[in-house]
Amino acid sequence: MRYRKIPDETVRRLPVYLRGALHLSQGGVERTSSRKLADLIGVEPWQIRKDFSYFGDFGTRGVGYDLRSLISRINRILRLNVGHKAALVGVGNLGSALLSFPGFRMYGLEIAAAFDVDKRKVGRRKVGVLVEDITSLRYLNRRGIHLGIIAVPENASQEVAEALVNAGVKGILNFAPRYIVVSRGVKLITIDIAMDLACLPYYVPAGRAVERTGFLTRP
Amino acid sequence: MRYRKIPDETVRRLPVYLRGALHLSQGGVERTSSRKLADLIGVEPWQIRKDFSYFGDFGTRGVGYDLRSLISRINRILRLNVGHKAALVGVGNLGSALLSFPGFRMYGLEIAAAFDVDKRKVGRRKVGVLVEDITSLRYLNRRGIHLGIIAVPENASQEVAEALVNAGVKGILNFAPRYIVVSRGVKLITIDIAMDLACLPYYVPAGRAVERTGFLTRP
Repeated sequence: MRYRKIPDETVRRLPVYLRGALHLSQGGVERTSSRKLADLIGVEPWQIRKDFSYFGDFGTRGVGYDLRSLISRINRILRLNVGHKAALVGVGNLGSALLSFPGFRMYGLEIAAAFDVDKRKVGRRKVGVLVEDITSLRYLNRRGIHLGIIAVPENASQEVAEALVNAGVKGILNFAPRYIVVSRGVKLITIDIAMDLACLPYYVPAGRAVERTGFLTRP
Repeated sequence: MRYRKIPDETVRRLPVYLRGALHLSQGGVERTSSRKLADLIGVEPWQIRKDFSYFGDFGTRGVGYDLRSLISRINRILRLNVGHKAALVGVGNLGSALLSFPGFRMYGLEIAAAFDVDKRKVGRRKVGVLVEDITSLRYLNRRGIHLGIIAVPENASQEVAEALVNAGVKGILNFAPRYIVVSRGVKLITIDIAMDLACLPYYVPAGRAVERTGFLTRP
């Protein structure tokens, strides 16, 4: 048994490893090496070995990792071995996309409730989920919902985060491109889609304007 | 002048630093320390210092980083000092959300073209962008578009990625929760929204079922 602090960066990569392991396992593979896993998911092999070292010995040198045990261990660490319900706030374009997103189920996650301020949306079903008035948010706790997803406009995001926390939510995924402050003990992850797009120009061959700086080139 | 390979993980964090620096700078701050920046963006201070070390000396010990120079340097490294145009493929819920997403402009990114297979959408404007037939995709190169965003259903994603590459796209942001293979020289980043949500249960106080495993607890 180990009780070590796992860095956030490592926790963030665990679902990536899980997805890769599931993919290989579904393809009939039983064991894999850090190198093969690395090739599949685009993380360096040493990083994988280092991350796995936080949880004791996953693999055997020269034999690799048993995928079934890897999957069950990551599931247990991330507490995905029990199902989790999330509440979605904001049923606009992004919220609707999230509701119909097929990927959550792979991790035992379910968007079990949806909320909006728009009276025209309230009372209707979106992808099977009833859209409720935002004022019903406070009863999340007794409904067994401990995760929240914020898909509202930027200027409403802080207020919604506070309402979610007051309703007993302990983990929040925020899509509003803005810094949100929540009380200690609540984990908030902000997804800024633009930030991921902003990485890409680095990999695009430079135009003349950039080459002239001479500052940095790719290997 | 330096010519060092920058790890992908570092490149991925640069927009995070950029956003934090922009946020501080817009608030009237001129200099910051790695600790203050770390507090704001949720990355460890040592990680920030290590990442910055790839680009030479950004800061002065005890004095910190000059924000204006930090911003301009990251912009130059990421090649965001020149504007970049992206093509969006798939104008469903997610695609529409991306088109109306306010965050891209901060990084000099613009969704300059949108494509769909649905004849009912083609010819219409979405958030000011004309939706074109997917067959017009091949002319991206001569329109100065080198980035692509895939927001189509899973089963169409590989085909769309190949069409984007054939059209001269060098960087792709993929939202389909699936492994996509592209030719060497093209950078593909897959955003799996479910993976980010899958991190959260780790931070939620464990229920009995999980505590019984006794495998790992948080500090």
